[in-house]
Amino acid sequence: MRLEEIDTPALLLDLDVLDRNVRRMAEVVTTTAVLLRPHAKTHKCPLIAHHQIALGAVGVCAAKVSEAEILVNGGIKDILITNEIVGATKLAHLAALAREARIAVCADDPENVQALNDVALDFGIRIPVLVEVNVGGDRCGVGPGEPALTLATQIASSTGLYFAGIQAYYGPAQHIREFERRRTAILGAAEKARRTVELLEANGIHCPCVTGGGTGTYRFEIESGIFTEVQPGSYVFMDLDYGKNVQEDGSVLEDFGQALFVYATVMSRSARDRAILDAGEKAVCVTLGMPQVYGMPDVEYVRASVEHGNLILHDPERVLSIGEKIRLIPGYCDPTVNLFDWYVCIRRGSVEALWPVAARGAVR
Amino acid sequence: MRLEEIDTPALLLDLDVLDRNVRRMAEVVTTTAVLLRPHAKTHKCPLIAHHQIALGAVGVCAAKVSEAEILVNGGIKDILITNEIVGATKLAHLAALAREARIAVCADDPENVQALNDVALDFGIRIPVLVEVNVGGDRCGVGPGEPALTLATQIASSTGLYFAGIQAYYGPAQHIREFERRRTAILGAAEKARRTVELLEANGIHCPCVTGGGTGTYRFEIESGIFTEVQPGSYVFMDLDYGKNVQEDGSVLEDFGQALFVYATVMSRSARDRAILDAGEKAVCVTLGMPQVYGMPDVEYVRASVEHGNLILHDPERVLSIGEKIRLIPGYCDPTVNLFDWYVCIRRGSVEALWPVAARGAVR
Repeated sequence: MRLEEIDTPALLLDLDVLDRNVRRMAEVVTTTAVLLRPHAKTHKCPLIAHHQIALGAVGVCAAKVSEAEILVNGGIKDILITNEIVGATKLAHLAALAREARIAVCADDPENVQALNDVALDFGIRIPVLVEVNVGGDRCGVGPGEPALTLATQIASSTGLYFAGIQAYYGPAQHIREFERRRTAILGAAEKARRTVELLEANGIHCPCVTGGGTGTYRFEIESGIFTEVQPGSYVFMDLDYGKNVQEDGSVLEDFGQALFVYATVMSRSARDRAILDAGEKAVCVTLGMPQVYGMPDVEYVRASVEHGNLILHDPERVLSIGEKIRLIPGYCDPTVNLFDWYVCIRRGSVEALWPVAARGAVR
Repeated sequence: MRLEEIDTPALLLDLDVLDRNVRRMAEVVTTTAVLLRPHAKTHKCPLIAHHQIALGAVGVCAAKVSEAEILVNGGIKDILITNEIVGATKLAHLAALAREARIAVCADDPENVQALNDVALDFGIRIPVLVEVNVGGDRCGVGPGEPALTLATQIASSTGLYFAGIQAYYGPAQHIREFERRRTAILGAAEKARRTVELLEANGIHCPCVTGGGTGTYRFEIESGIFTEVQPGSYVFMDLDYGKNVQEDGSVLEDFGQALFVYATVMSRSARDRAILDAGEKAVCVTLGMPQVYGMPDVEYVRASVEHGNLILHDPERVLSIGEKIRLIPGYCDPTVNLFDWYVCIRRGSVEALWPVAARGAVR
């Protein structure tokens, strides 16, 4: 099937670009002492996780237990859940999965550590637990230094758990546009991680892993010398938001190409400068900005309603007919992927495969 | 199962409130000469559509062909697709469905009308087509008056189609907060519809239907005397955005209750005034504003990341422990529903049923 025959809205994945992105990240990271553990919340797809692991990743990250479950069912054997897991139902789910694969989890609270230990003993397993350290994101995580030491000590002395390291992820820094400010933010976060690791070691607790970093900053985590593992996710697909980050020389972030698109059809030309697409909020996430029309700089996606996208045609010479299909570059790749059940995988203008967005909707 | 035992994030539907909302709308509309055709894009669920029809609705609306298909498969026999349907794949899909149920569709372009006629003749059916008239929303639709007459004439003379009326939906007016301004906007739109109907009749084209209106405005469409049918959708569930509309006396819109909630768990209390929920953008739509924490006016949902929700506790006395479950009132119900596969239906604090969000992801 040719690209133009695909019904819309559809989630297009350019396999050549995906492959280049996966290889590029593997080359950059695996030539250092730092391990690569890509975040699977971006793609939600065991097929892509296997591709990442085949090229040198040690495993992947997952955001939720239900997401980890899909990955385990898809044959992935080493997963870090980058969040705190709370509540009896989820803890039992986690423990059941941990009998089939290495599932590590984060913690930032002593009662939660106690509950993790209880469920591990109940299931007859040992669960690797990382202390999440708040290095600036002000979301989850204990403070660096003493609070992290206290929680690590509790984990290390829990017979159902073992202390597996610290997570020092600085989310907001991913989206700082300017190169030096982004670098400075991460090197500051790395100092908090370093101080914490030193305090742990001084108290006889070996810290085997310092994990963090994303597509916007992983080079700086590597540069810091304290991180042992990075967790970039979006690099496999890229999006407009990451495309706004700049490099040291002012060029666009890294060398990753745009692999992900939403394919849409013009369904109305109700005014000379207006075109309406069949792709609105239910087909493309707009919370980090409107999507961009690929290859048509004079056509602007100005507003999304739930079922429609509104385009303005800035060039009166632009021909854009009802029925014409165009590609959108999403503002934000992760939640856009979550709107679809399938990737329509294309290579050189033809459909090569359908891949399931297997963990679509895995919010628990 | 009790409410507190439900794993989160989950989409809760209070069946008592849903039932009251469905009955209330049926009472208000079916005591007038205007027909009620609720929009199913809100609930995406044939079970709820059957409930609406059982209480007097003549059928339902759907936004897309794939959404109509789910409704037809669920036993619904009368559907208006409130959009233009473009492209050979979708037109064949539409025609196939139209052999199983009454499927009407909107049009705003002569080539599209020609394509509708071709597929109807090909399938040996007649498709009811409405002219969409732009009465102020500036999205799809031809202008009122002459442009509508031209298209209606083409439809009426197409042997595979019949002219089924006009759609005069004014989307942006739904969200005008102030009562008189909202009313004035709709009465202005109604005048454009009236002028169009009169022009059609003067040219020998009977206009059997004028359809439009939403939860924010349907009373004004009824009041206008020109609409024969209204299409409210969100009233079944309600959301924060519609909750901001006020009545003539300054009270909250109509008498509809909040039936839809996202159930979430506190997963981190990493600062004294901060709590992190397991429900972010993947669990609740935030494009019309952050959700509200039900029953806790001193707790504010200030920011959503994809997998987390950030709460600020404004009252230092507020107890909110890790593991505690709370209800969120979504800012925008339609796209929130699209994030889930199931409604967890509750009545008086217990789970009564699971209903499928059958048309979740039906974007084509």
